[in-house]
Amino acid sequence: VIELIPKATGFVRLPNKFRLHHGGTLSGARVAYEAFGCLNASRDNVILLMPGLSPDAHVASHDQDASPGWWEGMVGLGKPIDTMLWYVICVNPLGSCNGSTGPASLNPATGNAYRLSFPKLAIEDIADAAAYAVQALGFKQLSCVVGCSMGGMSSLALLARHPDLTSNHINISGAALALPFSIALRSLQREIVQNDPLWSFGQYDQDNFPKQGMVLARKLGLISYRSAREWDKRFGRMLSDSYRTGEENSFDLHFTVEEYLECQAQKFAQRFDPNCFLYLSYAINQFDLGVLMGSTVQEALQRLQIENALVIGVNTDILFPLQQQVEIAEGLCTSGTLVEFHEIESDNGHDAFLIEINKFGHLITNFLNKISSVNSVDTVHRLELED
Amino acid sequence: VIELIPKATGFVRLPNKFRLHHGGTLSGARVAYEAFGCLNASRDNVILLMPGLSPDAHVASHDQDASPGWWEGMVGLGKPIDTMLWYVICVNPLGSCNGSTGPASLNPATGNAYRLSFPKLAIEDIADAAAYAVQALGFKQLSCVVGCSMGGMSSLALLARHPDLTSNHINISGAALALPFSIALRSLQREIVQNDPLWSFGQYDQDNFPKQGMVLARKLGLISYRSAREWDKRFGRMLSDSYRTGEENSFDLHFTVEEYLECQAQKFAQRFDPNCFLYLSYAINQFDLGVLMGSTVQEALQRLQIENALVIGVNTDILFPLQQQVEIAEGLCTSGTLVEFHEIESDNGHDAFLIEINKFGHLITNFLNKISSVNSVDTVHRLELED
Repeated sequence: VIELIPKATGFVRLPNKFRLHHGGTLSGARVAYEAFGCLNASRDNVILLMPGLSPDAHVASHDQDASPGWWEGMVGLGKPIDTMLWYVICVNPLGSCNGSTGPASLNPATGNAYRLSFPKLAIEDIADAAAYAVQALGFKQLSCVVGCSMGGMSSLALLARHPDLTSNHINISGAALALPFSIALRSLQREIVQNDPLWSFGQYDQDNFPKQGMVLARKLGLISYRSAREWDKRFGRMLSDSYRTGEENSFDLHFTVEEYLECQAQKFAQRFDPNCFLYLSYAINQFDLGVLMGSTVQEALQRLQIENALVIGVNTDILFPLQQQVEIAEGLCTSGTLVEFHEIESDNGHDAFLIEINKFGHLITNFLNKISSVNSVDTVHRLELED
Repeated sequence: VIELIPKATGFVRLPNKFRLHHGGTLSGARVAYEAFGCLNASRDNVILLMPGLSPDAHVASHDQDASPGWWEGMVGLGKPIDTMLWYVICVNPLGSCNGSTGPASLNPATGNAYRLSFPKLAIEDIADAAAYAVQALGFKQLSCVVGCSMGGMSSLALLARHPDLTSNHINISGAALALPFSIALRSLQREIVQNDPLWSFGQYDQDNFPKQGMVLARKLGLISYRSAREWDKRFGRMLSDSYRTGEENSFDLHFTVEEYLECQAQKFAQRFDPNCFLYLSYAINQFDLGVLMGSTVQEALQRLQIENALVIGVNTDILFPLQQQVEIAEGLCTSGTLVEFHEIESDNGHDAFLIEINKFGHLITNFLNKISSVNSVDTVHRLELED
């Protein structure tokens, strides 16, 4: 049995001519994944995690990679998603630059990076690639699909297009479609990157890339990820150390909040490919579960064949506002899905699920316990019938 | 008496070596104003309007300029600020590019535009220039000072520095200081402008100016001026006419909301000088009534010698959030000022006062009626005493 367990860190090669939602195809493409935890003998305790726009597949530390992951507090031994009980797979989104094939990857047909010749990308493609990956890794059924932020969208796309893969879903600060406020923010971020002359219509290189454009776009992202209230408490009107009094007409950094944004955004600009950012950002704006299923969003949610769902939103989230999680919960409810909905009170806005592990963790644990016992009962029933 | 009434549209020249808050001086500077309505014989029915960052002094149409002003629905004959009852003066902020002296103006000492040699500007300077202007126009006392948005800040600075000028104040969607969320937004707007290579450290010309940087900065402004809810209703996921299906890898305009932002931002970029924008934006971020008065904000507000105040905020304002108008109202209250506070429920965010004239208008009219009758009683008292 041991040989059937995938490597903890690896890649799944997608089939040649992997067809994308908008009509393009990819050959020689792959997705990066990490997979760890305790896989039971019947291989039916598997959780798929679908991340947001920027994280890689390294969701948490494990035997093969001890460095902390992007959801370190949530996943691991004795953590809310307890890897003693569950086997966790996290797939880096197709189109990203963190291991999966994207605009920054080499096009095997030309030997050069795709850049803007990468075909038009959709959230549906991220879902299809992840679904293909888990099946290629030997899992026909997942105990649960968990999606956060953009991953909440990818999860819904996966449930719509691969209904046999799972019957349990956790959607955290996600949405069934992009609304105009977040559409406008992301559209502006893309324009800021494209307006940097070093973007050069995607033809930048490592030494000359639109770093400043990426820094500014990321700052706008960071502004939208937290709440004003949290910043009032954390920064107030504190001045930064680098504030130089008496200097005329310097519009430079002055407040701690500006320094914080600069520092965080610089880190992101160093590690995220601008073209990949443009593709993923555009894909989020295009996503609409209703259009995908040829109906209204409410009807589309009703038609998802989910037995149990946990939907969590945050009262101060301005990017994926609470009404969007209410929409998901209400839509799933009408289809007979057993839906648990929780509004988290937090000053941490869209980022709350990354920060306030305590507030989210026990809800997730309880839900996983519930589906775990449901599954066990199911198994017993089947055994009885087989007798 | 007629010769004592100022021209409806004009300029007030500031004294030479006009001293600025941060230590610089201006010579040969002026502010643009508009003044109209019915001035009574005792010249004591004068209202000063202090506008936000972008408007000019043309608040509403009048005999000398029939074009609609930026608060056309609010000011005029039979309007909430009724020019049959009141004489209204609106002063374009010092530092602006709409008539008052600012970075785009000629420096008489050099014959060239100031650009970044313009001295460091503060909200306090806008207040001082406006206070000087109304006195130079022949008014020692104002019935009321009305400030909206940035004008709400300028008004508070004026009340702090020129306590004898008025004892009545209307503060609409204003603030006593800038908070980190809006500091970050404005800081990012300035960086976007400065990151446009055509900004050239302020040395652009009319044919080559950082138009795209200004367009992007204005889009960010527009995003912060309205509420997500209003855009959900107005735009939803409507596609723009210019959406070209099937075109690969165009990150171009797609949704109506993007088209709207483009159109509005282009207009602004055509009419507002980038350096002036940088100076005014920086001045807003620096403003802190507490620092100005050498105390906490609450103590500073307590020390303002106001008899009557009307403070209005909007529940969906993310740029000057409601808590900031509550802060002003509470601070003024403790000093014995008779404070009326109103929270307006509106989906129009920070811009609501420009749009929902009905919701704001009657509150303003009632307040003006109140101070008008108080003044009349006062006058009678004085007359009796003089007898």
